Amino acid sequence: MSSSSTPMEIYAKVAVQGDAVRLLKTNKATKEEIDAAVKELLALKLDYKTLTGQEYKVGIPPTNSTPVNSNSLAVEEDDGDYVDPWTVQTSNAKGVDYDKLIVRFGSNKIDQELINRIEQATGQKAHHFLRRGIFFSHRDVHQILDAFETKKSFYLYTGRGPSSEAMHMGHLIPFIFTKWLQDVFDVPLVVQLTDDEKYLWKDITLEQAYKYTIENTKDIIACGFDVNKTFIFSDLDYIGQSPRFYQNVVKIQKHVTFNQVKGIFGFGDSDCIGKISFPAIQAAPSFSTSFPQIFNGQKDIQCLIPCAIDQDPYFRMTRDVAPRIGYPKPALLHSVFFPALQGAQTKMSASDANSSIFLTDTPKQIKTKVNKHAFSGGKDTIEEHQQFGGNCEVDVSYMYLTFFLEDDEKLEKIKQDYSSGKLLTGELKKILIETLQPIIAAHQTRRKQVTDEMVKQFMTPRKLAFNF
Amino acid sequence: MSSSSTPMEIYAKVAVQGDAVRLLKTNKATKEEIDAAVKELLALKLDYKTLTGQEYKVGIPPTNSTPVNSNSLAVEEDDGDYVDPWTVQTSNAKGVDYDKLIVRFGSNKIDQELINRIEQATGQKAHHFLRRGIFFSHRDVHQILDAFETKKSFYLYTGRGPSSEAMHMGHLIPFIFTKWLQDVFDVPLVVQLTDDEKYLWKDITLEQAYKYTIENTKDIIACGFDVNKTFIFSDLDYIGQSPRFYQNVVKIQKHVTFNQVKGIFGFGDSDCIGKISFPAIQAAPSFSTSFPQIFNGQKDIQCLIPCAIDQDPYFRMTRDVAPRIGYPKPALLHSVFFPALQGAQTKMSASDANSSIFLTDTPKQIKTKVNKHAFSGGKDTIEEHQQFGGNCEVDVSYMYLTFFLEDDEKLEKIKQDYSSGKLLTGELKKILIETLQPIIAAHQTRRKQVTDEMVKQFMTPRKLAFNF
Repeated sequence: MSSSSTPMEIYAKVAVQGDAVRLLKTNKATKEEIDAAVKELLALKLDYKTLTGQEYKVGIPPTNSTPVNSNSLAVEEDDGDYVDPWTVQTSNAKGVDYDKLIVRFGSNKIDQELINRIEQATGQKAHHFLRRGIFFSHRDVHQILDAFETKKSFYLYTGRGPSSEAMHMGHLIPFIFTKWLQDVFDVPLVVQLTDDEKYLWKDITLEQAYKYTIENTKDIIACGFDVNKTFIFSDLDYIGQSPRFYQNVVKIQKHVTFNQVKGIFGFGDSDCIGKISFPAIQAAPSFSTSFPQIFNGQKDIQCLIPCAIDQDPYFRMTRDVAPRIGYPKPALLHSVFFPALQGAQTKMSASDANSSIFLTDTPKQIKTKVNKHAFSGGKDTIEEHQQFGGNCEVDVSYMYLTFFLEDDEKLEKIKQDYSSGKLLTGELKKILIETLQPIIAAHQTRRKQVTDEMVKQFMTPRKLAFNF
Repeated sequence: MSSSSTPMEIYAKVAVQGDAVRLLKTNKATKEEIDAAVKELLALKLDYKTLTGQEYKVGIPPTNSTPVNSNSLAVEEDDGDYVDPWTVQTSNAKGVDYDKLIVRFGSNKIDQELINRIEQATGQKAHHFLRRGIFFSHRDVHQILDAFETKKSFYLYTGRGPSSEAMHMGHLIPFIFTKWLQDVFDVPLVVQLTDDEKYLWKDITLEQAYKYTIENTKDIIACGFDVNKTFIFSDLDYIGQSPRFYQNVVKIQKHVTFNQVKGIFGFGDSDCIGKISFPAIQAAPSFSTSFPQIFNGQKDIQCLIPCAIDQDPYFRMTRDVAPRIGYPKPALLHSVFFPALQGAQTKMSASDANSSIFLTDTPKQIKTKVNKHAFSGGKDTIEEHQQFGGNCEVDVSYMYLTFFLEDDEKLEKIKQDYSSGKLLTGELKKILIETLQPIIAAHQTRRKQVTDEMVKQFMTPRKLAFNF
């Protein structure tokens, strides 16, 4: 941010740049030109917000009354979508505009060609999360496949911030997909539980954060990961057991400035230094030297990170740092957000019991929650519904089925019937309830079988069933 | 800093507050009143410097030409003394005004009463560093003694930033004194080698920083520490071997904001996040839970830190955080700076071979350096010297003798003879050379006897010869 600019000057710059973007779009400029102009526009809007504490609004010049809210800088666009690792907001009932996010984040769309390549490389039909665009964006996955095809292996890294004991269905998405990737590619997996992050961000003790880690680890193990191929770790535990991990953290921390994390994560001067340096902790597992017990000290084993798109800022930073410390950039696979029962405007929240189906819910609770809270795209009366049909694009029950109903034909038929009005909202909800109940019951059964001994096994730093 | 103030507004505030301080002093206000006003003045000067990048100078209003140098905020006063953990500067040949530093840092003078108490508690004559005011300031040492007298133990913590292989004589001061404290109090000692800090601040690799740690550790061991009572650790090594240490780091990091480290250390937005979070790493050894192997998990063993006064900012921060995370505040003993051969205006520098006597210097090198570089308080000609006498207050050879010549009577005689002009500069230098040569030769002999196995022993996390 140019420190010499007044709010009014930046306000004017934003307005001018907004016009420039619109002009480029009207004149059908190249994607690169438009992207560059949009990037500049977003940077100016961030400057404006940093300086004034206010959102830029067309036609409303800056006032002096609002204090700077240093925690709320993030990538935002005219449509009101707002995505950072802690907040996802959109005013659109269909959810965030993911095509725009791809442009904004500078990632690549997962297209049919990439899906075909994955099927070819693995000899397996693509997971329905890929087929249905639930994992919709990526970085450098072609590079992973190039290497894989010449017998050069990679590893998977995903994670979770253990903010409470109970996980909800949305939290399963990256793990279900990662499990599939582990199965079809047969590669090592590391899972980071960022209990240090949760301690830093929330009003909880270290002990509570660690307890959540253990409880969440049981749910993760219940997803079916192979103990011989998977290392799950708590930051609070593992960082103090791995000099190499800490050394990578320090390396990353040397190569990222406060200005950078301010720009990426919106940190401000009143944030604690733990938050400010935390991004390096989430970055470190992207480098194989952080796990010498698994990779035998090799530093060029590439990492593939399946995660929700809101985690991308961490890995944009990581990819920026990687070449400067002599490591390969991690590749990424981004998923959409799992919608709250109330609608796709927000992510599910572990702190609002009615916004989510929890992995601990009983069949009855599932039924009640879906019937009572799942936002419907149906019409107000049966007559209207039968005449005009429901709207699958905003119907949460239908959205959930895209995540959890594996049968493509059945899903397509539901879509047609609901859109035509043949299938009523109550019937659609019943299908969802009957889809979720057995999935959650099975998860609960598997989770019960997870012993403390198994948790310990997964969390012990050790060599996995791969020779590096 | 109030963001709404212009440089000129703050300039005016500094001027007004400066007048206020002078008025209080003239009117013989209480020490508390004056201290509070000085503190406010310094805060305003910092604000001024942050905003303008310029030092406040009486009668010279702000200009717009200088960019903000965010790395140069530190405690500074009208006399031009400037002290932070990386810079010590004064325009006075006698060195920094330590009485002013005590006021400025809010610490306490080590007075005769405290020295008497230490002698009483230990049954030993006070070390000459205490008797001669080389350790001149403290925090809470009375509390340590209160507890010690009721058989409640404490532990010692000191450290070193390993910035090169060779240490100079100034680096020995805290270790010589700590060794004495360990002997007379019979308590555990932890020694932190901040190789992570040196990696973050300097243009060196992790491997180089760690190599310096090992070489410096040999010099520290050569000071005579008892392996059964001393744990020496490299941050790069130990943090990755101690979950409790890392957990304390995270606790501290949660309770310190960027604003605070900006104010204390002068960090700026373009500093890397490693520097910004580093103070928590230096703070962590102040808490006994960081060493569960030594203190059996007990969290109320108080820590006493002997260090040069420039390290105090770290521990002011630590003492601020301690009660908020349920730990006792560390006590401190502050030493003056060891002067460079060229004079007391600056600290010795490990990077300028002629500014220091190194622990690796030969008898001949010592002789040459003292004769050639040691700043003399003598007069220009022998006749003048014999007539007017030399000035011990600025004579570096004499200053060095106060550090290394243990015999009080002999030292007093030298002072009298030099001040009277009876002792010539060449003779004084000869005494210093003959004092240093055997000390350094003996150090070199002891260092040669330090084996890799001994280094390993000292650096292995383990229980010491104390039952907690």
